[in-house]
Amino acid sequence: MSVKVLTIKEDILGVNEEKARINQELMDKHHVLMINVMSSPGAGKTSLIMQTINEFKAKNRITVIEGDIASTLDADKVSEQAVPVIQINTAGGCHLDANMIKEALDNIALEQTDLVLVENVGNLVCTAEFVLGEHKKVMLLSVPEGDDKPYKYPLMFTEADVVLVNKIDVLPYFDFDVSALSKAVSGLNPSASIFPVSAKTGEGLEQWFSWLEDAIKQTKNRTA
Amino acid sequence: MSVKVLTIKEDILGVNEEKARINQELMDKHHVLMINVMSSPGAGKTSLIMQTINEFKAKNRITVIEGDIASTLDADKVSEQAVPVIQINTAGGCHLDANMIKEALDNIALEQTDLVLVENVGNLVCTAEFVLGEHKKVMLLSVPEGDDKPYKYPLMFTEADVVLVNKIDVLPYFDFDVSALSKAVSGLNPSASIFPVSAKTGEGLEQWFSWLEDAIKQTKNRTA
Repeated sequence: MSVKVLTIKEDILGVNEEKARINQELMDKHHVLMINVMSSPGAGKTSLIMQTINEFKAKNRITVIEGDIASTLDADKVSEQAVPVIQINTAGGCHLDANMIKEALDNIALEQTDLVLVENVGNLVCTAEFVLGEHKKVMLLSVPEGDDKPYKYPLMFTEADVVLVNKIDVLPYFDFDVSALSKAVSGLNPSASIFPVSAKTGEGLEQWFSWLEDAIKQTKNRTA
Repeated sequence: MSVKVLTIKEDILGVNEEKARINQELMDKHHVLMINVMSSPGAGKTSLIMQTINEFKAKNRITVIEGDIASTLDADKVSEQAVPVIQINTAGGCHLDANMIKEALDNIALEQTDLVLVENVGNLVCTAEFVLGEHKKVMLLSVPEGDDKPYKYPLMFTEADVVLVNKIDVLPYFDFDVSALSKAVSGLNPSASIFPVSAKTGEGLEQWFSWLEDAIKQTKNRTA
């Protein structure tokens, strides 16, 4: 990549970080927790969000922001859960950014919201580079993708607060070593929480739910 | 995404396309076929390339260009096949570009080469936007990713000459409809060849091998 590209990218990132800071301040004012959910395409972000809504919607007020290059497929699925959903179509863009989230937040009644779940574009590279104003970054690595991904896509694993190893229901059919993956992630990011789960069968999700419940509580108890 | 970003992107794409044209002219001069292999992370690009080398190396002279953000894991694997491998590390970049390929081509004895297989960065978005000078684009969609991906990542499916539906060995464990996928791809890109394969077991690869053999022959017979 040429120096020109990097320079341009730094400028954009600078502006983005400032806008992300403003987004976060706005949410903090209303004691809203925002989670940025990232992964490769098809790793299970939508399924995780569906399970999470199902678990939390009785006690927490949730809004979902769906980021996609095109289509409203995921938003349509999520809206079946009877929570507000805002679809952002990036028109080719490989990640969400703070400006897009700002526009989405303008359409959310934050004073009546506890949790904003953001489903980013399916991309293990670009999404990790752009903060949105989220309080926590959650990434999914699915078993079929292979346990070597932290070495090949290090930034995402370095940035994540939580790494969900998804699709453990198909572990018998793939050559995937959960302990090798955990070791690789811990090497890059010692403070990351690593939870093996199946968003399809529900296996292991209790660890994720417990983590999220704590994070919501902390947000509510924080003095803005 | 702001207008500023789009303008910048167009400038870069313009320069890239000119460099890609020069790359292709250089390969045409030497009757070399270049294939750009793209997919999400972990969809099976390296396994496909390994199987392809194994099938073709006795009769064709192959060089592999490995694109990764970090690490030489795939290049190390491919080099076990005793073909020349050039590793490009993009240092964070989400796709290969024509300039990177130019540098790699400077290190290949093109007069002694029939086929250059390029393994792009694992990314279903950015890689589709940057031509490298390749003659054909091959993409893999793996079964675990789901059959809805053409709707969500349309550019890649529109650009591909060949769509390999990989990991069909695990079809029984996933909710994936091959005919629905084929219909979605054909809707976007009626001329794309669609081959269901397993790069792991070898199932279905004969169609891909036959397609590639024809493409190599056409390149050799072409008058530069």
